[in-house]
Amino acid sequence: MKRILTGDRTTGKLHIGHYVGSLQNRVALQDAYDTFIILADVQALTTHFENPGLINESIYDVAIDNLSVGLDPNKITLFQQSRVKAIAELTIFYSMLVSVNALRHNPTIKTEAKQYGFDDLSYGFLGYPVSQAADMTFCNADLVPVGEDQVPHIEQARKIIRRFNTLYGKGESIITEPREFISNTPRLIGLDGNSKMGKSLGNAIYLSDTKEAVNQKIKLAVTDKNRISIKDKGNPDICTVSKYHQVFNPSSYNDICEMCKNASIGCVACKKQLSQAVNSLLEPFREKRAYYESHRDEVRAIIETGSEKANQIGNETVEQVKSAMSIQLI
Amino acid sequence: MKRILTGDRTTGKLHIGHYVGSLQNRVALQDAYDTFIILADVQALTTHFENPGLINESIYDVAIDNLSVGLDPNKITLFQQSRVKAIAELTIFYSMLVSVNALRHNPTIKTEAKQYGFDDLSYGFLGYPVSQAADMTFCNADLVPVGEDQVPHIEQARKIIRRFNTLYGKGESIITEPREFISNTPRLIGLDGNSKMGKSLGNAIYLSDTKEAVNQKIKLAVTDKNRISIKDKGNPDICTVSKYHQVFNPSSYNDICEMCKNASIGCVACKKQLSQAVNSLLEPFREKRAYYESHRDEVRAIIETGSEKANQIGNETVEQVKSAMSIQLI
Repeated sequence: MKRILTGDRTTGKLHIGHYVGSLQNRVALQDAYDTFIILADVQALTTHFENPGLINESIYDVAIDNLSVGLDPNKITLFQQSRVKAIAELTIFYSMLVSVNALRHNPTIKTEAKQYGFDDLSYGFLGYPVSQAADMTFCNADLVPVGEDQVPHIEQARKIIRRFNTLYGKGESIITEPREFISNTPRLIGLDGNSKMGKSLGNAIYLSDTKEAVNQKIKLAVTDKNRISIKDKGNPDICTVSKYHQVFNPSSYNDICEMCKNASIGCVACKKQLSQAVNSLLEPFREKRAYYESHRDEVRAIIETGSEKANQIGNETVEQVKSAMSIQLI
Repeated sequence: MKRILTGDRTTGKLHIGHYVGSLQNRVALQDAYDTFIILADVQALTTHFENPGLINESIYDVAIDNLSVGLDPNKITLFQQSRVKAIAELTIFYSMLVSVNALRHNPTIKTEAKQYGFDDLSYGFLGYPVSQAADMTFCNADLVPVGEDQVPHIEQARKIIRRFNTLYGKGESIITEPREFISNTPRLIGLDGNSKMGKSLGNAIYLSDTKEAVNQKIKLAVTDKNRISIKDKGNPDICTVSKYHQVFNPSSYNDICEMCKNASIGCVACKKQLSQAVNSLLEPFREKRAYYESHRDEVRAIIETGSEKANQIGNETVEQVKSAMSIQLI
C-alpha cells in the first residue's frame, strides 16, 4: 500500500476551508493509502514560538477536527511531530544538501515571511522546506496532498532527496521522492471577503462551530456591497456567499446566481440556504466530535499509539539513511 | 560533579596541536568533571558531506586518539553525535530562537566559510552554532573547553539559551548556560610554517605517528630560511622548530634560542632535540594506542556504551525542554 503524508500545523482549530481543501481528500483516500497525518507542533513553533500555549491546546483540537470528519483511527496514523525524533534527525542531514540562497529564494518562504511581517527570519523559519522534506521522507511517503501554494516546498524536497540519493545511494534510491496531490478546490476565501480563510484571521467557519454559530457567521458574511435593497440586482462574482454556494451547495449554485442577478432572491434567503448546506455537511461531524470531546483519553491514546508507530518507522528510516551515509560504526 | 562537553569533528586523525590545545586539558580535568567527549560525525558532514568514508574511518581514529592520551573510558563518556537524537531535536527547537542574520555575522562562520572556499553556504553549515548549542546543552554542560577562535560560538549558544530560559522558564533556568574554558596554549603552527597545524593540510604531526615518522617530519620542518650555513646566526622568532621547543621542550627553550642566535647549535641538532621531546611525549600514548588498535571491539563497545548513556541523558533533557515549551500532551 502506498503511503500518504499530510497534516496541519497545530496553530488553531481547523475550518471548512481546510475541509474542502484537504480533509475531505484524506477521508476519500484513507482506504487506498496508508495515511500518516502529522500534528505539526514543531513547525508550529516557527511562527508561534512565543505562544506555545496555543500550540498545546491545538494538538487536541486538530486531532479531533481530523477524527470528526471521518478519518478512522484504525486505518490512519495520527501522530505528533515532536514525538518523531527521526524528523529532527533527517532535517539535520538534509540541511547539508541545500543552500541558504536556495531557501531564501523559495517563493513560499518569501510569501509567508511577508504574511507574518518578518524582516529578520529565524533560522528555523528559513529551514521550513528542509523540515518538510523530513516530514515527507521519514515514512517514505509516495503522495503529499497540498495546496497549490505549497508546491515549491515539494519541489525543494524532491531536489534534496535527489541530491541525497545521488550522493549516497550508489545508484539506488534510498529515500522515496514524493509526488504532490493538488486539491482541485481553490482556496476558500474568508467571510470578510479576504482572499484567505485563516485559522486566526477572525473570518473562518470552524469545523467545531455550532449550528447557531454557523448561521450567525454566514448572516454577517460580506456580499455584493452595491446591492443595498432586495430589489437591486446582485453581482455573484463579487459576493463571498456565492463562492461558498459554489463549493458547499454546488447543485443549486447556478440557479442561485441567476436569482441573485435578477433580484429574485434576497441576501437573507440566500444566506439561509448556504447555512443549511454548511450545517448539513457539519452535522454528522458534530456527532463524532461530541464523542471524542467526551473521550479525551481515547484521543490521547490514538495520538500516542500513532506517534509511537511513526517514531519507530522513522528510526528505521534514519538507520537506513545513516548506513547509506556511512556514519554507522562498522 | 559539574559537566564538561568537549570533542572533535571526525574529519581525520588528531595531531599534537589538538593535544596541547585540548586533549591534555581533558585528561587533567577528567577526575574533577563528569566529562562528555563528542565524536562529532554529524557536524563533520557540514564540510565533508561528499566524503562520508573519511568521516566513518575517523570515528575510530578520533576515539583511539582520545583514549591513547590517557582518557579513561571508566571515567569519561565518549559518544558518537549521530547516536544522540536529542542533539538533532534541540537544534530544531533552538533554530526558532536565532535569526539568519545573527548567524551570518558570526565571525567563526565567516572565517570558516572562507577557509573552505564556500560562496554559497549550505543551510547546515550556517547552523553550526545552533548545533553546537545543542551539543553543549543536551547534557547541560557547565564548562566547554575551546580555542579562542570558537568563543563566538559559545557566546551565540549562551544567547540562545538565555532566550530559551526567558521565554519558557517562567523565571527558572531550564537549560544550563555553559562557560568557556580557553586553553592557555596558543594554536600550534604547522610544520610548513602555516599559521595552523591542520588535520588535512599535510603539515601535522599526528598522535598516531611512529617515532620514525616524527623524526622525518621534524627534519623537514621549516626553519629560519636566512640561515643557510651552520655558521650563520639564526632567528628563532621566525623558526617553526623554535615554536615547538617552546611548547614541547619548555625547560630548554631559552637555552636553545640563545644557542641558535649565536650559532652554537645547528638546525640538525636542534631538530634532534625536538624530536626526542615530542617522541618522549608520544611514547606512552603509543603503548595505549597499540592496545586499542588490537582491541577494536573494545573501542566499539566504549563508543556504544557512551552513546547509549548520552542518548538517554539527551532524551531526559528533551522531555524537560518539551515540557517547558508546552508541546507535551497533557
